[in-house]
Amino acid sequence: MHRLRVGIAQINTTVGDFAGNADKILKVIEESRSSGVDLLTFPELAICGYPPEDLLFKPKFITENLRTLEKIIKASPGITVITGFVDSGDDIFNAAAIIHDGELAGVYHKIYLPNYGVFDEDRYFRAGTECSVWEIDDIKFGVNICEDIWYEAGPATTQAYSGAEIIINISASPYHFGRGGVRERMISTRAADNVAVFIYNNLVGGQDELVFDGNGLIVDETGRLVAKGKQFEEDLIIADIDVESVFRTRLHDPRWRKELLLHEEHGWRQIEKIIISRNPYDTDKPPLPLRNVERLEQNAEVYSALVLGTHDYIRKNGFEKVLIGLSGGVDSSLVAAIAVDALGNDNVIGVAMPSRYSSPGSESDAELLARNLEIKFLTIPIEKAFRAYLEMLKESFAGQEPNVAEENLQARIRGNILMALSNKFGWLVLTTGNKSETATGYSTLYGDMAGGFGIIKDVPKTLVYKLCEYRNSISDTEIIPESVMTKPPSAELRPDQKDIDSLPPYEILDSILTAYVEEDKSVEQIISLGIDEKYVRQAARLVDGSEYKRRQAPPGIKITPRAFGKDRRLPITNRFKG
Amino acid sequence: MHRLRVGIAQINTTVGDFAGNADKILKVIEESRSSGVDLLTFPELAICGYPPEDLLFKPKFITENLRTLEKIIKASPGITVITGFVDSGDDIFNAAAIIHDGELAGVYHKIYLPNYGVFDEDRYFRAGTECSVWEIDDIKFGVNICEDIWYEAGPATTQAYSGAEIIINISASPYHFGRGGVRERMISTRAADNVAVFIYNNLVGGQDELVFDGNGLIVDETGRLVAKGKQFEEDLIIADIDVESVFRTRLHDPRWRKELLLHEEHGWRQIEKIIISRNPYDTDKPPLPLRNVERLEQNAEVYSALVLGTHDYIRKNGFEKVLIGLSGGVDSSLVAAIAVDALGNDNVIGVAMPSRYSSPGSESDAELLARNLEIKFLTIPIEKAFRAYLEMLKESFAGQEPNVAEENLQARIRGNILMALSNKFGWLVLTTGNKSETATGYSTLYGDMAGGFGIIKDVPKTLVYKLCEYRNSISDTEIIPESVMTKPPSAELRPDQKDIDSLPPYEILDSILTAYVEEDKSVEQIISLGIDEKYVRQAARLVDGSEYKRRQAPPGIKITPRAFGKDRRLPITNRFKG
Repeated sequence: MHRLRVGIAQINTTVGDFAGNADKILKVIEESRSSGVDLLTFPELAICGYPPEDLLFKPKFITENLRTLEKIIKASPGITVITGFVDSGDDIFNAAAIIHDGELAGVYHKIYLPNYGVFDEDRYFRAGTECSVWEIDDIKFGVNICEDIWYEAGPATTQAYSGAEIIINISASPYHFGRGGVRERMISTRAADNVAVFIYNNLVGGQDELVFDGNGLIVDETGRLVAKGKQFEEDLIIADIDVESVFRTRLHDPRWRKELLLHEEHGWRQIEKIIISRNPYDTDKPPLPLRNVERLEQNAEVYSALVLGTHDYIRKNGFEKVLIGLSGGVDSSLVAAIAVDALGNDNVIGVAMPSRYSSPGSESDAELLARNLEIKFLTIPIEKAFRAYLEMLKESFAGQEPNVAEENLQARIRGNILMALSNKFGWLVLTTGNKSETATGYSTLYGDMAGGFGIIKDVPKTLVYKLCEYRNSISDTEIIPESVMTKPPSAELRPDQKDIDSLPPYEILDSILTAYVEEDKSVEQIISLGIDEKYVRQAARLVDGSEYKRRQAPPGIKITPRAFGKDRRLPITNRFKG
Repeated sequence: MHRLRVGIAQINTTVGDFAGNADKILKVIEESRSSGVDLLTFPELAICGYPPEDLLFKPKFITENLRTLEKIIKASPGITVITGFVDSGDDIFNAAAIIHDGELAGVYHKIYLPNYGVFDEDRYFRAGTECSVWEIDDIKFGVNICEDIWYEAGPATTQAYSGAEIIINISASPYHFGRGGVRERMISTRAADNVAVFIYNNLVGGQDELVFDGNGLIVDETGRLVAKGKQFEEDLIIADIDVESVFRTRLHDPRWRKELLLHEEHGWRQIEKIIISRNPYDTDKPPLPLRNVERLEQNAEVYSALVLGTHDYIRKNGFEKVLIGLSGGVDSSLVAAIAVDALGNDNVIGVAMPSRYSSPGSESDAELLARNLEIKFLTIPIEKAFRAYLEMLKESFAGQEPNVAEENLQARIRGNILMALSNKFGWLVLTTGNKSETATGYSTLYGDMAGGFGIIKDVPKTLVYKLCEYRNSISDTEIIPESVMTKPPSAELRPDQKDIDSLPPYEILDSILTAYVEEDKSVEQIISLGIDEKYVRQAARLVDGSEYKRRQAPPGIKITPRAFGKDRRLPITNRFKG
């Protein structure tokens, strides 16, 4: 018998929700059992959610996690289950439990702990040192966790050369655009290199600034896709694995035999083999058809990530409705569209807050958008408060020219109105700043930056336009009005103000920002790429000078390789000019 | 010749200020040379400032740091200099340069990289693997960096057992209360254990949320203090070291001889010995007297840390004046006093912003405080704006009871006024929230939380009172009015509001917060300590529910073992109840 029916349960967990996560896990076990699944996998740290951050320092958190594991073990007669949890001994470990027929058969400790980008795993976990291989009914498999699989000669290879025909990796791998394809190629390569079937389970869902995109995979020993799970949705992928050909291929592969010798000499990790009691189940089931899911094109993918990230942040934090200040510009229009797709139009409220400097088009565009999205729409002009402030400050401001103080006051009055509605009705305020603004500080602290979640905070302005076009393209009717997308961007805080007065043109700005913020290129290097020196110096100066603002910005959804947030940790006090 | 004149230059560096840091270093080298110093030390990463965080990912940053090192090497004929810098090879290292007579004699790479609390050094550096010992004129010394010395059988021990008679540790060890004493005892123990003279150089100055307290030390081989530098101030500590007695003690110490054998077997680090050319200087100078500095008592110490942290954040970020909203309460009064001590009374502006709910005492107390501190004082009543908002929101709020929305509006109007003055005149706004408020979210986002720096953010309310008393005790005349300290705390956002209506009494609250926030105790554990269950559950619920607020708070100065900020990284989305 060389066949096994495997299940990849890509579930959407919530950090710290032991009861909720356990319920999900138990339900999928039930469902899988009735589908004849022999071996079922759950994501990394599925029991406690990912990333739990400093909750890991709380002994009670670890205890509840272990208690929840016990519940899952007891609920697993008649099936093999692999799930992430926090193991505890002299230290704590990012671990996978190998549960077989209602018993804990073994535990794997993650060996490679990521401590870069958004990750801080060295802060919490001790690294594992053992690469075990387990066996069910003569089929051998290795289990490892997320980062472990990104190393060429890592635990997967050790396990394969110790006889594992199946390699199971359970992950919580955060999304950024383009990552899914890289992951798929990497896993396909690993499978072919190790002549083993690879089963890749990835978490799905939003957790603060991160979105996990699911997209689980089964790849055969030639690197060919056997099954793929949905992107940005929970899914249970079931497939039949036949390891007969793994054995045959290895037997005839001269490269394999040569490397086997090398690995025997290597011995860099202690190898154990734990035998699980023979598999009592009928594995002679008819094979399932190939199951595939088309990869979303880039704009659709980013849009889906934003919808999922928004939905999960709002719902997992116990909110129902969101409130958005609608300026009639592209940013707030896109935010409103995403919010409606994430939460439904009944749960989104738009409010226009025109001032003496608002163009007539702004209000009508905001209203048209609200009508297109069929959301509740309020209009609250800010003139009264603006006049009150100017009077209150008259004496202190005597003899001073109008400057950014008066401009910011208008943005802050809007922030106050949004927060007053939020406090009165329990609606969470979504901010509308994009990555280009966040990078350059082209925004008002406590003004347009006021709110609970900045859903397009990591979306560059040029991509904002593309996502608006994408959103319109999937609708029969126009959602974001044409006029919103064609007018020149403006904050409308003084007469005839345009973004271009304060910033480089967005196409140029965004390419500078990618180089400066995401690639750590110096000003000199960027100029040498042929970009106008004036714009490069202006952008770099603005980025360097806005760290204090970003530190007080609400969280937002990461969609680029380096977002502002945990991904990029710069001091505020800093005299270095990049 | 077994004598050496050593200098500990505890300087105040600025992150990224290569030119400024180099100027300081060169000036101290000049001064030390003329004082006959043979061996001069500077703090960890003195060349680039500490902690540089993600600036370390910028190649240009590393290059400028290496160029600055070259400048210092060239400026060091006739002296031995040890300074922190970032070394670069296959990877980057937190390093110490051993410079001798205008040449780079060697480099040490930090072995233990802290990656807990506020530290992220695994994110940046590769750990060193070599414990070298150097020699000047027959005197052997080992150099290591900060965390290295906190390990009992760490690099210092290896260096001592390889013959080093002097151990030099260069540090950037952040202050929290009580830490100085622990450090002094630890170093004294290490010195006696290793029968070696220990020279400890610690950075001084504020960098964002951290304050480094200096307080350099020289301890002889019996653990006795030879010299100590100032706390919270730059200092150059010069002392003569005689290693004759190290040799004698080791010769007669049976424990030393036995452990020597053990260490020879140990061999866990590669040991190198690099011989520096014989010391050309006259070391036969008359010995200097013992130099000591009394440790400040706890309130004075915390107060000094806050003054230094405030001064450095404001000045290093290029601001001159600060603005503080004065409510007549203890928090804003303490903040104003610290600001005056940090920046001078000409650079502090207080503004009272009374509302319809302010008690008459509030305004007069604020005014009296301003008079005592001799600072500029403005009064801007908020009623006009408050009335304007209520009218603007009348329709939306129709049929709703007054709630926190109206309360927060008042706090936000005050935030707007402060920010308008800040934007108009370039004054940085200091927020006045204490740790008890920050923990429980007893504050208004964009209201009293609006500002650039929260100087007492890590000071629990009960300590706020003590610091006020301390500040009054060191003045001939009363600074913080008696009435400020005796009235019951109130936010004055509705009639007869008192903090006690929303929070446990502060003495109880602060002890719960220490246990829950700093010690990761569970609610059940805290109740079992004998604290009223009602208060414990209330406080824990408030702490858990305020993570989103803290995420948007300005930075503030760490003075406790665990501050909110880099020290405590909790998810916002989190269903765990501690």
